Amino acid sequence: MSDIRIKKQLRELGRLTPEQYALAEKLPFALVLDDIRSANNVGSLFRTADCFALQHVYLCGITATPPHRDILKTALGATDTVGWSYHEDCAQLIGELAGGGAQVQCLEQTKQSTPLDAFSVGGTFPLVLVVGNEVKGVSQRVIDLSHGTIEIRQYGTKHSLNVAVSAGMAVWEISRQLRNA
Amino acid sequence: MSDIRIKKQLRELGRLTPEQYALAEKLPFALVLDDIRSANNVGSLFRTADCFALQHVYLCGITATPPHRDILKTALGATDTVGWSYHEDCAQLIGELAGGGAQVQCLEQTKQSTPLDAFSVGGTFPLVLVVGNEVKGVSQRVIDLSHGTIEIRQYGTKHSLNVAVSAGMAVWEISRQLRNA
Repeated sequence: MSDIRIKKQLRELGRLTPEQYALAEKLPFALVLDDIRSANNVGSLFRTADCFALQHVYLCGITATPPHRDILKTALGATDTVGWSYHEDCAQLIGELAGGGAQVQCLEQTKQSTPLDAFSVGGTFPLVLVVGNEVKGVSQRVIDLSHGTIEIRQYGTKHSLNVAVSAGMAVWEISRQLRNA
Repeated sequence: MSDIRIKKQLRELGRLTPEQYALAEKLPFALVLDDIRSANNVGSLFRTADCFALQHVYLCGITATPPHRDILKTALGATDTVGWSYHEDCAQLIGELAGGGAQVQCLEQTKQSTPLDAFSVGGTFPLVLVVGNEVKGVSQRVIDLSHGTIEIRQYGTKHSLNVAVSAGMAVWEISRQLRNA
């Protein structure tokens, strides 16, 4: 039984070269990082964006930007492949994206948020997912400008998940639905 | 539109106290961390296990164990609520768990792995998910003793995701199916 479950070698993974990736179709799905404190989290989020071929990563406020030692350590080169831009004022960016027709969803626990397991991808695209500061979450000003909030139901004692982990779960779920649509 | 999307206050999150958590029903789902190098990743994984009410976290090989400064920093107390144990020899543990009736799945890219988006939870429980070293992944010896391997399809240039992120995606997907079953 073991012989068929040999680990793939690097060349067998079928990954794209950076040149191929630049030309590859991306999902109509972007991430906004609003005031992310940890550059390690920023790097992890870049790596996730590369793996799922997201369209763009918007870095806002105090979020560190490449090149940065701690981003590079966790992004492992994904900052060279994923399109990104920096915007000091996140609310202004969100206003512009929503004004341009994007659907803006915040990953945040609000009184009216949709559980991620009940969220159905639909409406206008691109879908822009905003994740916020490790302690404060997404700012109320950004939430007010968005189309909705998505929450990951939790069953334990902690108030929240690590932001790179929770964003990963949301990217997984939304990408799964987009690719199956 | 904004007034209904006010962020929840901590007391509105409805989280369990550690005492309530100890008595709460857990999912028939456990994590095995095999040779995880980064204690930060271990802490993140504990936090994920708490949030989804997993049954147990098995720490194996070189994986750091609580109390540990970097685990505490990212676990934020989840090491006090989630049941865990340490096992030097991961393969021996896996043999014992499989022998005891558990279904062992490894999160690893093999020639015969099931894509996570095609994985249907079923068979025997508890389901035990093994995640491996940040560079080497799950060892072939452990894969050989398991019932299957699950792979997250990737569309970018990087070979893998951060282990706390990829495990988070798998925990999300498997928990979602277990709770909807």
